[in-house]
Order: sequence, then structure tokens, then C-alpha cells
Amino acid sequence: MKVVIAPDSFKGSVTAMEAAYAIEKGVKAALPSAETVIVPMADGGEGTVETLVSATSGHQVSKVVTGPLGRKVEAIYGVLGDGVTCVVEVASASGINLLTKDELNPMQTTTFGTGELIKHALDDGYRKFILALGGSATNDGGAGMLQALGVSLKDKEGNEVGFGGGELGNIRNIDMTHFDQRVEESTFLIASDVENPLIGKNGASYVFGPQKGATPEMVEELDSNLQHFANVIEETTGIHIHDAAGAGAAGGIGGAFQAFFPAVRKRGVEVVLEYSGFNEILDGADLVITGEGQVDSQTAFGKTPMGVAEAARKNNIPTIILAGSVGDNIQNLYPYGVIGVYSIINRPMTLETAIKEASKLLEQKTEQICRTFFARGNKV
Amino acid sequence: MKVVIAPDSFKGSVTAMEAAYAIEKGVKAALPSAETVIVPMADGGEGTVETLVSATSGHQVSKVVTGPLGRKVEAIYGVLGDGVTCVVEVASASGINLLTKDELNPMQTTTFGTGELIKHALDDGYRKFILALGGSATNDGGAGMLQALGVSLKDKEGNEVGFGGGELGNIRNIDMTHFDQRVEESTFLIASDVENPLIGKNGASYVFGPQKGATPEMVEELDSNLQHFANVIEETTGIHIHDAAGAGAAGGIGGAFQAFFPAVRKRGVEVVLEYSGFNEILDGADLVITGEGQVDSQTAFGKTPMGVAEAARKNNIPTIILAGSVGDNIQNLYPYGVIGVYSIINRPMTLETAIKEASKLLEQKTEQICRTFFARGNKV
Repeated sequence: MKVVIAPDSFKGSVTAMEAAYAIEKGVKAALPSAETVIVPMADGGEGTVETLVSATSGHQVSKVVTGPLGRKVEAIYGVLGDGVTCVVEVASASGINLLTKDELNPMQTTTFGTGELIKHALDDGYRKFILALGGSATNDGGAGMLQALGVSLKDKEGNEVGFGGGELGNIRNIDMTHFDQRVEESTFLIASDVENPLIGKNGASYVFGPQKGATPEMVEELDSNLQHFANVIEETTGIHIHDAAGAGAAGGIGGAFQAFFPAVRKRGVEVVLEYSGFNEILDGADLVITGEGQVDSQTAFGKTPMGVAEAARKNNIPTIILAGSVGDNIQNLYPYGVIGVYSIINRPMTLETAIKEASKLLEQKTEQICRTFFARGNKV
Repeated sequence: MKVVIAPDSFKGSVTAMEAAYAIEKGVKAALPSAETVIVPMADGGEGTVETLVSATSGHQVSKVVTGPLGRKVEAIYGVLGDGVTCVVEVASASGINLLTKDELNPMQTTTFGTGELIKHALDDGYRKFILALGGSATNDGGAGMLQALGVSLKDKEGNEVGFGGGELGNIRNIDMTHFDQRVEESTFLIASDVENPLIGKNGASYVFGPQKGATPEMVEELDSNLQHFANVIEETTGIHIHDAAGAGAAGGIGGAFQAFFPAVRKRGVEVVLEYSGFNEILDGADLVITGEGQVDSQTAFGKTPMGVAEAARKNNIPTIILAGSVGDNIQNLYPYGVIGVYSIINRPMTLETAIKEASKLLEQKTEQICRTFFARGNKV
């Protein structure tokens, strides 16, 4: 009996790795002889580097770069086991988790550190990039990242504009003379589930601005600034990113990749599955167990457990989904080979208790499910 | 695929029958072609008559009798499909659910109505009785029941004592001259899980008195009165019921059966399984689903789901247990062929919500479990 364990993180509770270990304990409690393979998942947000490095036995590289508000931070990029692919999380250098709640201010936060991190990786010789866009604290349209890589963003006096989404309105000219030439020699695979356009009511500022600390007034200004920046970008490059799908990811950094980088875009979980060698791991497996904090009828639309289930389904392997909370109308998951969607909750309890006990609950529920699944056809 | 559905009630939420219907919906949602057999369970408490009548296609008989506080109530007894066995619940004539919370007073409540109900069944020709002892509002040692059946309980002036546990201390003499002779010609199978003795700290008054409305002072007096009554019973019959296992059931009515009736005692679930023909129902089944409100490590000791699982185990059929709340350390259930213990809870929620949504939650969880169980060995 071989069980592949591939959960995402349970946000606010356990990491993907912690969830995977708890699930493994449950499998072993039900069937000590079971072979288990742990492949923690990620969706292109935080945890993507850790996941891909762990899955491929790669390593991490630590660099000091400029944080979202200018303070130096220690950020990491990952190098996969192939030795040539590197993974950069925007969250590592420019992430929301690097700031206190009071510090959040997308008028000022910059992606400069992400640009520096890419530059470091280029310096270290890497030309094959995976970019994970989730978890940014920024709404600067990737301006900071471009500046770190040598693009000059000048105001009407010809001076370099400052950091943050509040400065974008001052940009009159984009000077690419000193844009790092190695970018053109590289490939960038963008791992992101965000389909939002750059500007407008469905754009970066309106949809994601508030959770990054933008007031309603800021949202309007940020949106207007991004529109202005997109206009200048179009004048400079001829590329119209205003309403391009995915341009609104990570405060508009998605748009910068589309306009200035040799980039292709994929769903986060697809990138993780591909680069973790998930198909090979599935070989000979009898069951796949995945999960994340919440599962509902929306889960069928590209979230991590569905990506995992889809991959398993192609190999005729059934998938169990675990979640803290299971919504109604989850039938649309069934066509993907999902043979059970289970909440880990074992009694009436608060969310706080569930978060605190998540590891134990994951282990216990997995044990019961595996006992049920393994029992079929056996004598009791 | 044949699934036998045999839950107990989820106390305070759904009846055994309601639970069974919800579970059946879940089974059919997972596998519309599944054959399902519904056998609601009971443990000798309320619901036993309904369960056995329904399982055997018997019928119910309604009689007006004396309620626990003297008001007339409509009580029922059941006649099984065999046409000769009748089932009497103490709760039907003398139950706690017949009173408001303010009326609860074991000093005054009587089992007289239960005696009348037995007398009606004797009048109707029945001689084979199943007595379900759970749910009584009384602590009268079965005195009222004995009086209704012709036993005279006289005080020192030679007058009949009144109703209730508060009167037992006045009994000086038990006159069995007019005790209904048909009782001796009958058999009484006592369905009860209570192992408590009649008197003392583990006896009827101390353990069950408070939930029937006894204050600490009442508990002491009730216990002392039961001790006195047991002394007089021993003088009269030679039978010492003071510390007899099960004598403390239903406010001491268990002791009265032991002293005055040709009675044998069995665990409630065993009686229900035997008389519902559970073994025959199990024939050809692939899975049994049972459940009750709470399941924990104590469940292995005689509670309904374990009785069901034990019976299934003897036929090599695996059992799933559903519960509102699942405790830790349930491994001691596994030797009984239990292949999964699941809470029906699907997200962090309060007990109130769980109680309100129980039917939906039962259906949803059953569907998932059956999908998992049925999937094994099938292509997805």
C-alpha cells in the first residue's frame, strides 16, 4: 500500500510540511506497513520555495535585500535539485509578513527587494526562474523590481521616482538603457492563480489593495497611478497590460513581467506539481491525500487540492481531501477522482481550537479514513 | 452492495429513525444502487418500543394511565410482529419527559402508571414482556408499579402509603395477597444498561436522583427510604436487593423486578438486536453504519454502537460509527470490526448548530465515507 501525501498549508494553522507529517502519522497508525511519500504542496504563494526545494532535494540561498519599506531584510531564493532552476517568492523580499499590521501601506511599499533577489540569482549564474507571486505587501506595479534591475523611472524633472504605489503617477519616462541584459537571456515561469487585470474594479488596487492596508481613498489613487504607469509602459514597449489577465497579481508585478520579461504564466499548483516530479511520485500509489484550510464548491476551480486530484486522476489513483472546513455542494469535485472530502473537526469546537489542535485532528481523521479505505474487501 | 443502517438516537438532536433516514440518504447519494436496510437502535431507553415495533412490523397499543404526578396520561406499549411479545417503556407512563422541569420531584413521582400499563397488557392477553427501564422520572423503588398490580404497601396504621419516593419510609408491611397472579405466569426481560445497586453512593438516589429534580437533602432521604423499603422487601420475600447489580435502574424499579417478578436482565442493545432479528438482517451485508451522539473510549463498554459492531463482527461485516462528538483513544473499538469512527461535524461550529444541522451533517458525512469505502479497488 503506497500513499502519497500532498497537502497545502492550512492557512493560519499548520504549514504544508506540518500537515504532511501529521497525515503521515495517521496513515501509519492505520497501516504501519504502508509506504508513504510526503510532497508538501503550495499554490505559488508563500511556501513555494520550501516545497520545491524539499521535493527536489535542492537548496536555499540567503541574501540581504531591501524590504518593502526600505529596511534591509534577509530573503531567500531556492535552487532546485536540477541545479539550474531557481525559485523566487515575491513574499520573501517584499512580503506582507515582513511588516507589522500598522506598517502596511501600499502607497510606500516597494518590490525593489524582489528585483535585487533576481539580480543576485543572475549574478550567481541562474537563468531559469520560477517566480511565485503570492503574499506581496506592494501595489507598485513592479516598479521597484524594474528599478533594481536597472530600469530608470523618471519624473518630469528627469529624477528617479521614489518607492511605492504612491509614486507611480509621477513617472514620465521609462529608460531601459541599463536594464539588466541577462533578463532577456533568461526564462521566467510565473506561478500565480490570480487572473485579475491590472486596473479597474477587478484590478490589483481594488481587489487586493485593502488587505495590504489601502484606505478607500488610497485604492482610488493607487488604481489611477497604475493606469498612468500602464500608459507609460505602453508608450515605451507597445505592450498593453491594462486589462491583461494576471497583470493584477502581486500589486501589478504580474503586469511588469508581461511587459518587460520573457515570461510565461501557469497556475501555482501546476508549477509545483511539474517541478516536484509529482507524476513520477504517483507511480504505484494506491491513494493520494491532500488538503487545505477550506474546501468548498470553489475548490474545483484551480485550487491546490484539485490540482493534486487531477494529477492523481490521470493515473487512476483516488484522492482524499482533508480540510478544516468543508462547504456544501462539493459534488463538482467528484469527477476529479475525489473519493472523500473530510473535515478534520471531531466535535463541536471553535475555530481557535481547531487551529490549535490541527495536527492532532489531521492525524486522527487520516487514521479513520485510511482504516475505512483499507478495510474494503478485507475481513474484519 | 448492501448497507445496514442501525444508529441509536443522537440525544437532544435526532431520533434513531431520523438519523437512520439521513444516513440512508447519504448512502444513496454515494451509490444510488446500494441496497439499504434501516434498523433504528435503542438502548433500553426511550425509543425502544418504536424501534422494536418498527423492526418487527408490530403495532402499538395506547392506554390511559396514571402519570408520574397523578395526572392521567396516554401511554403506549408495543406488540412485536410475533404477536405474543409486548414491550413496555417505563418512560411512556412514568417518564421524565411527561413533566416540566419545575414539576420534577422524585419525592412525589410514582411508577403506578407503569404497573397499570403492564396490567392492561396482561388483560390484553400478553404474558411475554420486554421492559425498557430508561427515562423514568421516579425514585420510588417500583412501589407504585407494585401497587397498581395489587401489592399493598401499608404504613404502621395499616393504611396504604401514598405515591413517591418520599413515602417509602412509612412502609411497615407488604401484603401480596392480591398481587396479580398473571405476573407469575409471565416472563419479563429487563432491557437496561444500568448496573448500579439500589442504595448507597452508587445507588439510584445518589447517581440518578439529581437529574430527576432531587436536592442534596432529598437525595439523602430518598436513599434512606429506599434502604428501608429494601429491608421490608427482604423481610417479606427473603430477597436482598440492596446492593444487587441493576437494582438501582429507573429509580429502583430494577430492584422491584428482581424481588417480585420472574425477570431476567440484559443490556438494552442486546435485547433490541435479538428481537429486531438483527442477525438475519445482516445476511449478505457489506457494511454496517451505526452511531450516537457521543463516542469515546467508554463506548466499547456496552453502548449501542458497540453492540451493533459486535454483532456485525461475528458476521465478518465491518462497521462505521458516526457521532456528533468523537473522543480520544478510541482504539479499543477497533477489535470489534469498527473500520472508522467519524464526527459528523464539517467545520468549526457550536453544539447548538451541530444539533440543528444533524440530519444534513449525517447525510453529508455518510456520503463521503461511503464514497471512500466503495472506491477501494475501483478505478476513479
